Amino acid sequence: MESAIPKHLQTARSRHRRVGDDYSPPYPSFVARHKPKVANVVMAYFGLQYRGDPPAAAGALLAAIAARLADANGPSHWDRAHHVDQAGYSNVVSVAYWDDVAKFDAWFAPAREAWTGQRSDGVGRYIEVLRPSVARYETLFSSPDRAEGVAVIADGMSGEIQEHAYWGGMRDRIPLSQTSEMVASGKPSLVREGQRLHVIAHDNLCLIRSGQDWSDTEASERRMYLEDVEPVLREGMDFLRDQGTSIGCYANRYMQVLGSDGAPIEKSYGQSWWHGISALERWAESHPTHVRIFGAAMKYLSTLGPAAKLRLYHEVTVAAADEQFFEYADCHPRTGMLAAVETVAA
Amino acid sequence: MESAIPKHLQTARSRHRRVGDDYSPPYPSFVARHKPKVANVVMAYFGLQYRGDPPAAAGALLAAIAARLADANGPSHWDRAHHVDQAGYSNVVSVAYWDDVAKFDAWFAPAREAWTGQRSDGVGRYIEVLRPSVARYETLFSSPDRAEGVAVIADGMSGEIQEHAYWGGMRDRIPLSQTSEMVASGKPSLVREGQRLHVIAHDNLCLIRSGQDWSDTEASERRMYLEDVEPVLREGMDFLRDQGTSIGCYANRYMQVLGSDGAPIEKSYGQSWWHGISALERWAESHPTHVRIFGAAMKYLSTLGPAAKLRLYHEVTVAAADEQFFEYADCHPRTGMLAAVETVAA
Repeated sequence: MESAIPKHLQTARSRHRRVGDDYSPPYPSFVARHKPKVANVVMAYFGLQYRGDPPAAAGALLAAIAARLADANGPSHWDRAHHVDQAGYSNVVSVAYWDDVAKFDAWFAPAREAWTGQRSDGVGRYIEVLRPSVARYETLFSSPDRAEGVAVIADGMSGEIQEHAYWGGMRDRIPLSQTSEMVASGKPSLVREGQRLHVIAHDNLCLIRSGQDWSDTEASERRMYLEDVEPVLREGMDFLRDQGTSIGCYANRYMQVLGSDGAPIEKSYGQSWWHGISALERWAESHPTHVRIFGAAMKYLSTLGPAAKLRLYHEVTVAAADEQFFEYADCHPRTGMLAAVETVAA
Repeated sequence: MESAIPKHLQTARSRHRRVGDDYSPPYPSFVARHKPKVANVVMAYFGLQYRGDPPAAAGALLAAIAARLADANGPSHWDRAHHVDQAGYSNVVSVAYWDDVAKFDAWFAPAREAWTGQRSDGVGRYIEVLRPSVARYETLFSSPDRAEGVAVIADGMSGEIQEHAYWGGMRDRIPLSQTSEMVASGKPSLVREGQRLHVIAHDNLCLIRSGQDWSDTEASERRMYLEDVEPVLREGMDFLRDQGTSIGCYANRYMQVLGSDGAPIEKSYGQSWWHGISALERWAESHPTHVRIFGAAMKYLSTLGPAAKLRLYHEVTVAAADEQFFEYADCHPRTGMLAAVETVAA
């Protein structure tokens, strides 16, 4: 058993973990490990938004960004997913990961200009980027043999880690929690730059991407996921999407992952922006839908352990103010972090 | 809103609370407040055990202890409850509370001698006592207007407190948690003294008494408690009684409270001995039965708040080694803390 916090990021603590040194989790979990030389990663969400059938411009934009993502300075990994938002718009989001900020910076300017720099009738575009220090995020995987999201660009997976399967494990896995409460402060504000809208958020804004992969499940396990787990998960996702702002969730997207041919595959993830990690903790612990999900997962993984074919993972980031970038063009006013600012004239 | 930790017990912290200063619980809860001069309380459990119908000796013993409990140096409050244990024995437990250790000490020696000093054919007797410093325990009440247990001897109830309705609130309400991890260390051992068996436990042993009072509920609320909540609660209690030792619960009793005439009233409580508060925390957070209970209570109290007629309370103590006393006479070998020592020849 090892700590979720890699050795090179372990520091003298001013804040304690929630569990004692003798804590032993009831089932195994794993985290992504980067090479120690990796200082920051980049998580970039390129969203495209339209109502009804995809306009012709949408296909062209998606093809163009896919081509750019394949550039030499492009990401080490990217994926694409779809959801219908609370305003009834379709959103296709391409999520890309770098572990070299210089490469991202070299790549980004023309990609940004192509994505949000021109008008595109009937198609909204947005860019949401975090470039967190590796001390500011954590991952968690129920199985070590299939990476997702930022973990795909890591050096590999850890062995079994200690800090999981209890409330507070998420915080305890983030290296910065050794010395910081990671308190969120401030309110998001809006800045216009031509037709682009920027949201300037605040220190310790929190992002979670939390996914499930049922592609390997069979028979009873598949039925269990689709009939017992997924509807409860969806209920929780809908709550966050529609009523999240009341509890500090600025925006939530329950994404259906798309394969390389653009068709849905048997993976999904929830992606949400939070005022801070405390708000995310409180929701996770107290909202009936998430408590049910957690309870079901605990029971399930305690029984099946690594034999489970359903794969669960997440990545959670607490970003410094200068590690964030939010840009929206031709989007409806409840899109992503636009929903976090009080009045928006789109 | 006030802290659960009374002002006179607030100290410079070396350990942080789990929630930030801006945390706001979703429903009100309250704690018992003693006068600042109270340094320790005494919680004394006098148990009587028999199989089948009560022997004549049982009635005589219960009457005698009741008379002693009414003495001048007797407790400020006591109550009585019944349960059938995992070996099929009936147990009647009289629980008494003092806030003056000197009075308890003056009272205890003859009471002890009368209870466990002589053989009593067919009737087991036991005494389990904690005398914790006020820094070593906490209480929690869903309503401020009906005290139970140790709270009956307190000066009164607090206003609405901050540290509740999140996992970790129990620990955060114990004043000692400001400076101590309260790690349990050591293993219980057995010492014989004639026909009496003593269990010598260890530092930071944990006791919880957690009760419910449905006497004021009506119609749908009563049905909700009896049909939805109580069976789940019972399932959790049965798990702790039968399989608790595997997770650090030495003993659990799900008690039916008795009125002054010896008949059951509409109150019950679970009382359990734990290796330490961490083991109790882990069970509470991860065992499906308790997670369901917590989730149901959260939802219920968030909706009804102080209008709820179902009353919930608990008291949790983390006792120092020298604040404990366990004595058993003529009891079966799985009685109370006897179950915590490895081999017992009764």
